[in-house]
Amino acid sequence: MNYTPPIREMQFVLHEVLDAAATLQGAGVDVDRDTIDGVIEGAGDFCARILAPLNTVGDRDGCRLVGDTVVTPPGFKKAYDQYVAGGWPAVDCDVEHGGGGMPSTVGSAIKEMLASANPSWTLYTSLSAGAYRCLNANASEELKRRYLPQLASGQWTGTMCLTEPHCGTDLGLLTTRAVPADDGSYRIKGAKMFITSGEHDLAENIVHLVLARTPDAPKGTRGISLFVVPKRTVDPDGAVGNRNGVFCDSIENKMGLHGSATCVLRFDNAVGHLVGEVNKGLAAMFVMMNGARLGTGVQALGMNEVANQKALTYARERIQSRAPESMRTPNQAADPIIDQPDVRRMLLTQKSWSGGSRLFLYWLALQVDLRKSSPDPSVREYAEDMLSLLTPVAKAFVSDRAVDSASLGMQVHGGAGYIADYGAEQTFRDTRILPIYEGTNGVQSHDLLQRKVLSDGGRRFKQLVEMVSGYAQTLDGRQEMDLFRVALITLAGEIDTLVTDLARWAQDDDCRVGTSAVDFLNLVGYYVLAYFWARAADTVLQLGDQATDFHRQQLAIARFYFDKLLPDTFSLLVRARSDTRILMDDAAIAF
Amino acid sequence: MNYTPPIREMQFVLHEVLDAAATLQGAGVDVDRDTIDGVIEGAGDFCARILAPLNTVGDRDGCRLVGDTVVTPPGFKKAYDQYVAGGWPAVDCDVEHGGGGMPSTVGSAIKEMLASANPSWTLYTSLSAGAYRCLNANASEELKRRYLPQLASGQWTGTMCLTEPHCGTDLGLLTTRAVPADDGSYRIKGAKMFITSGEHDLAENIVHLVLARTPDAPKGTRGISLFVVPKRTVDPDGAVGNRNGVFCDSIENKMGLHGSATCVLRFDNAVGHLVGEVNKGLAAMFVMMNGARLGTGVQALGMNEVANQKALTYARERIQSRAPESMRTPNQAADPIIDQPDVRRMLLTQKSWSGGSRLFLYWLALQVDLRKSSPDPSVREYAEDMLSLLTPVAKAFVSDRAVDSASLGMQVHGGAGYIADYGAEQTFRDTRILPIYEGTNGVQSHDLLQRKVLSDGGRRFKQLVEMVSGYAQTLDGRQEMDLFRVALITLAGEIDTLVTDLARWAQDDDCRVGTSAVDFLNLVGYYVLAYFWARAADTVLQLGDQATDFHRQQLAIARFYFDKLLPDTFSLLVRARSDTRILMDDAAIAF
Repeated sequence: MNYTPPIREMQFVLHEVLDAAATLQGAGVDVDRDTIDGVIEGAGDFCARILAPLNTVGDRDGCRLVGDTVVTPPGFKKAYDQYVAGGWPAVDCDVEHGGGGMPSTVGSAIKEMLASANPSWTLYTSLSAGAYRCLNANASEELKRRYLPQLASGQWTGTMCLTEPHCGTDLGLLTTRAVPADDGSYRIKGAKMFITSGEHDLAENIVHLVLARTPDAPKGTRGISLFVVPKRTVDPDGAVGNRNGVFCDSIENKMGLHGSATCVLRFDNAVGHLVGEVNKGLAAMFVMMNGARLGTGVQALGMNEVANQKALTYARERIQSRAPESMRTPNQAADPIIDQPDVRRMLLTQKSWSGGSRLFLYWLALQVDLRKSSPDPSVREYAEDMLSLLTPVAKAFVSDRAVDSASLGMQVHGGAGYIADYGAEQTFRDTRILPIYEGTNGVQSHDLLQRKVLSDGGRRFKQLVEMVSGYAQTLDGRQEMDLFRVALITLAGEIDTLVTDLARWAQDDDCRVGTSAVDFLNLVGYYVLAYFWARAADTVLQLGDQATDFHRQQLAIARFYFDKLLPDTFSLLVRARSDTRILMDDAAIAF
Repeated sequence: MNYTPPIREMQFVLHEVLDAAATLQGAGVDVDRDTIDGVIEGAGDFCARILAPLNTVGDRDGCRLVGDTVVTPPGFKKAYDQYVAGGWPAVDCDVEHGGGGMPSTVGSAIKEMLASANPSWTLYTSLSAGAYRCLNANASEELKRRYLPQLASGQWTGTMCLTEPHCGTDLGLLTTRAVPADDGSYRIKGAKMFITSGEHDLAENIVHLVLARTPDAPKGTRGISLFVVPKRTVDPDGAVGNRNGVFCDSIENKMGLHGSATCVLRFDNAVGHLVGEVNKGLAAMFVMMNGARLGTGVQALGMNEVANQKALTYARERIQSRAPESMRTPNQAADPIIDQPDVRRMLLTQKSWSGGSRLFLYWLALQVDLRKSSPDPSVREYAEDMLSLLTPVAKAFVSDRAVDSASLGMQVHGGAGYIADYGAEQTFRDTRILPIYEGTNGVQSHDLLQRKVLSDGGRRFKQLVEMVSGYAQTLDGRQEMDLFRVALITLAGEIDTLVTDLARWAQDDDCRVGTSAVDFLNLVGYYVLAYFWARAADTVLQLGDQATDFHRQQLAIARFYFDKLLPDTFSLLVRARSDTRILMDDAAIAF
């Protein structure tokens, strides 16, 4: 497997651009640069050495349903045991539940590498953290004692059971029932589908977080409650008991992520316990969903990174045609294709998306830590505002760009890109789920424009624009930063006008949001990445003579981003204003 | 299978917009509207009834190599026999070789439907026509007698053997040897890979057209000759003899098109005959390659069409959430997702690409017929100019849009899009090869900008711009066409300036073409489709009160294209001018 943890890139983002350790220390988090580096290097070693070699076999062998048990691909179980033994699941869980207490910022770096090395395998781990956080935020102390230590240690894994055959996006339609029993527990009955890691052989128990309706619950989303339903019942002291009434009836035959079991689960009078209050389940689950959406962004970053690594390796090795400025092999008939301008365009596009996504997502992870730990309420509030505003962008924009990048990675490979042996097509297939699950990217766009931008009169959005424009103004007079400054300020003005117009139009036009949402989200994504690439360029330029080759590379990518990719905003600004009536003309879809 | 041949759409393009029958009659081709309709309807019935039901099984079962024979998926052989019995392979072959003598315009419509119904199966047929044309144009009368009737009837199939493990794009590197024998034939020795339909069990014989070097041939592309090498030797009277020395050593494990055998072929002193002159093989093969490139565009159109049909069906049936202007089911909790603006955006984007591609490609097919049949040398020359200029656009732009469309089709399906049962993911996997094979889309872009636009001082490109602008000027004073007229004229000016600038810059900068080529090709693609959508809108508007619901749909799609998609040209115009030094900065790819 061609995966090398991008430790240097991570350090650049965490230490040089974001100054994460100092920021975290300022919020009272006990962490320093060396500790961060040590953890990341250790995790990177595990990912490259243990997980990456299992990526191909996971795709080829996939999962098998034997009876109602899912058998995972060869090697997955052993790797999971090593993951647990290494203490990795608990790294960013609370110390009181046996966790390492590391910040989410570090957790994100680890999750990026897991997703690069083996995205299918990683899915068995990724919802455990979400289940941990959801229970930690909403469950009773008794349930916490029962479930949190084992979720933190990785002894058990977690799931998120929302979707039913007739309801995905629209959870108000769900029909799974929860009937109270005499002992205060509930009996859960219904069918759930698309349940990631709903059944597997990696861990002793599986903790399902399930949305269901109690008898006489109101219709729609106001009548949904949250339950914890273990695969095997759990005694109050945490000991594992008998098999509960949760069964895997089938696993999906998917385009990619073959090593990850996507299950149809049947809850047949399964014993469950209420988490939080009755009918408040959707709000409680949103903690987990928002985490999963940020997590999808981080997965996308990891898969973008590995797609680029594979393409770079191939482009350096593949000799074909003379390059226009061929200097490397003057006596040969042909040059490595990496010297072809169009191949560089593809590789640098990948690098722009992966590096830009990393800056953006690690900064967002820092906001997660600040929201949790900062003693300053205004810092916590700001962090919450930025997280609520930008989570849909992190999920949708970063995942769409990861698919673009995986597709470019195939294209760099030419014919070899379509052949299984080279791995590029697996990465592409595995990546293609990201714009779909955890709320499609269309749903994310609607969430951004309607609920995050227009609903509060643009308050949160203005904070974002002020952060970017405020930063851009500090660049005044620094000619070397003019390219970046001018673009950021111009774009801020354009987006600001657009938001004002959309808000006005949306008042009289119910279709306005749906018509503009996807283009608007992409616009915000380009804008946010421009801000972070400007800061990265700034960081390098401030180094002066101290800049290394690595730093010059980051500067070159930042310039490429502004020169070749950011112009896409010219189109997006126009598209976002397109006529809703043209879209909603019934003649257009009548046939 | 959800495939309904789009007969009405085809008739609209052929008869109402392009007036194909009259144009063909004017060039002396004996064909009328009723004949065209009859052939298309017959072919459509075969595609929908016989081929489409085999599409899923082809993906699931794939091909198997047993010894050195490829066993195709269940049902493929029987369908192929029916195809031959129906006379379909020969429809657009010459009457003197037993063909039906139908124009390429009709052949393209048939090929579109074949690709929609079953792209893997169709690949067994698609290179036979190319081999037929290549031999017809270059081979001796004796070889023609030996091979053409059986290729026309489909009794035998054809291949195109170019790629070797170390050479794809750069054919100058190829090393397969052809040694003259005493009887005037040659002995071919070497390895070829990525050979579509290189071995299979559908037909009695396979006719390989092979590029190889004779002893003492000059290096590079000037020393390549073309040979015809049958799987089984062919007597001068056309009777099939013994097995020749061509062996399939393995078949590729691909991302998609599992029902199509992509072979590694070993030529082990196989008997071959020279086609055309020694060392002129590449030029002779280009007849076939250009046909294959146009054919890839038509495949892409067919796959785009079927991706849209599947997505439309799903969007009409899937009930989820209230739509903003929900009117269809006032008493239900949710509406069909087709009433969501963002779903319409996706469906109309697909329709813009499929309908626009059809207009463009059928018009190009008409140029193929005019180039062959017109008694007027200026018409033939114009057709040749347009074909040479626009073949790379037909291959690259249409295939990239087909991948976009197949991806949108998955996205419309939500979670179901990633699951094999719904077919959307198969279409996406099958489509993804199109931007890669028959010369990657990067290679096509280079071909367009360097060899078709800059090399003749923009002569052919000016003809295109004059055709479009000349048409746009005829719209003067027709207010209902203003949207289209203004956009076409503005864009013509922008592109014209761009070409002038690129020509000047390219004189001093070897990297200019490679830096701008892909953005330039996309720009031309948007421009050409805008021209054809304007003509389609014009056709509808001229009908006045006679316009039907179908016509109003075409007009609505045309407006959508101009309003929502054509704005992408704002970005492309800027991107195409981006700095070559930024792309070629070695710092950027040093790591």
